[in-house]
Amino acid sequence: MNFPKRLTKSSHTIAILPRYAETDQGKVVHHSVYPVWFEMGRTELLRANNVAYKDLEAAGIFFVITELHINYRRPARYDEELQLLTRCCGVTAAKIEHTYKLTRLSDGQVLAEGSSILACIDADRKVRRIPKFMQMSSQAKLESQETTNSEQ
Amino acid sequence: MNFPKRLTKSSHTIAILPRYAETDQGKVVHHSVYPVWFEMGRTELLRANNVAYKDLEAAGIFFVITELHINYRRPARYDEELQLLTRCCGVTAAKIEHTYKLTRLSDGQVLAEGSSILACIDADRKVRRIPKFMQMSSQAKLESQETTNSEQ
Amino acid sequence: MNFPKRLTKSSHTIAILPRYAETDQGKVVHHSVYPVWFEMGRTELLRANNVAYKDLEAAGIFFVITELHINYRRPARYDEELQLLTRCCGVTAAKIEHTYKLTRLSDGQVLAEGSSILACIDADRKVRRIPKFMQMSSQAKLESQETTNSEQ
Amino acid sequence: MNFPKRLTKSSHTIAILPRYAETDQGKVVHHSVYPVWFEMGRTELLRANNVAYKDLEAAGIFFVITELHINYRRPARYDEELQLLTRCCGVTAAKIEHTYKLTRLSDGQVLAEGSSILACIDADRKVRRIPKFMQMSSQAKLESQETTNSEQ
Repeated sequence: MNFPKRLTKSSHTIAILPRYAETDQGKVVHHSVYPVWFEMGRTELLRANNVAYKDLEAAGIFFVITELHINYRRPARYDEELQLLTRCCGVTAAKIEHTYKLTRLSDGQVLAEGSSILACIDADRKVRRIPKFMQMSSQAKLESQETTNSEQ
Repeated sequence: MNFPKRLTKSSHTIAILPRYAETDQGKVVHHSVYPVWFEMGRTELLRANNVAYKDLEAAGIFFVITELHINYRRPARYDEELQLLTRCCGVTAAKIEHTYKLTRLSDGQVLAEGSSILACIDADRKVRRIPKFMQMSSQAKLESQETTNSEQ
Repeated sequence: MNFPKRLTKSSHTIAILPRYAETDQGKVVHHSVYPVWFEMGRTELLRANNVAYKDLEAAGIFFVITELHINYRRPARYDEELQLLTRCCGVTAAKIEHTYKLTRLSDGQVLAEGSSILACIDADRKVRRIPKFMQMSSQAKLESQETTNSEQ
Repeated sequence: MNFPKRLTKSSHTIAILPRYAETDQGKVVHHSVYPVWFEMGRTELLRANNVAYKDLEAAGIFFVITELHINYRRPARYDEELQLLTRCCGVTAAKIEHTYKLTRLSDGQVLAEGSSILACIDADRKVRRIPKFMQMSSQAKLESQETTNSEQ
């Protein structure tokens, strides 16, 4: 598999349209769906960097979540357009950190924020170093900081 | 793995308590949950025959669903005790047929009925013969017919 | 709510990208996910007719599935682009029939086919007539038949 | 609805048997399933206190999750018996805090730990005070502290 030399984009936004099956009888999206969306956000951030997660797995590189934190601020509702911003905010040899911001498209309200930590394992589930090319370039690090600052 | 010589029980009933996450905003269990329950019914019918499905997989024997039919009669609701009767009603070298009846415990009302056909594949997803010991014994076949008749 | 006078499109195709969370340890999409995709297909077929299902619910018009049939032919895999064709093939005062065809984009292989029957209920879950505007126009019926014929 | 005067039990353990549909192609339970199990843990802790969550909802008392934290230590696997300890470790007029410990039954290994914060809302999704009877009794508080201490 031909992976890029470096990942250059540290954040990416995807559109999400909550499915009927994702709601619960409280008439909002069930809170267990957010980790699924966050995972989609990570997949598409990778793809924006020209890497398909399935190609990583084919190369014996698996990522597993070791920590997850979610703040639920406002409910997400069926068929209401959302945007999920996923940001990679730290990569070491051992772990990758992401943050997430879920926003309602119509009015920009933040519905949820979250963060996660991933570790890297091989096909036998042994912990392994995160591939060099997935370490953030200095440019991506800079961008990541700048975006963070400009939002404060 | 030590599998039994024959499967002797052709039907089995399990208790199901619908989870909050399984409901949708229509305030009933989402219809995509029933196939999950049916699969649990098959797993426990196997276990009642002293076979763990995970041991089959460990032995390179995988079952995949090729056909599924569900009649939804009445809604299932959150935290309302249900009973699922799973019956194996036919095994050939190529496929296994099951039927399902989902009942509300409180009043015996039938909420859903269904049927499925499974095929057997190996670890490379190639179709293979269903193991001999999973063919129904004449006794199980008889039982299966008798139960069916007595219900008519 | 302003609903159209008639639904004019009887079929619609959506793109589906299987999520990681939708796979199971057999390394394919779990069979319980297909009903979720079919539901998305119905929602988008409605939207192609300028009707949002959530507006129907807001108007006290709910649809529930009473029958579901799925033929699973080939496995769907993580992150492999699919197309789902949903066709409305019959509407009476009491029920709506749909058929589904799930195809792999890369080679056009049919992965699954299915059908479902919906009934219409009100906010108290009482069966009600399907709104007149959802009955297929003669044009849509004709189109539906023509497409069916041309595929044979 | 007749609710008890006080909740007297601050912790409760339930058995969990991971379903096939809960696994992913990494051959372990998908991380989005844990919040579903935690919710089951809360439901059964309530029931151990003679309260059914559905009766709370029927009385116009709804709980929504506002914060969730999970540490994933070791993977949970299909059909491998687990135990989930749910502990209520704090109730104020505005929020309820729970902690969770998921253990593998066979060897007592801790697979995951977590915590959550719930808020209370009414049928119109307005924040409301948590009912008095759900405040922990001094006995339960004491027990809660003792259990916590004895584990250190």
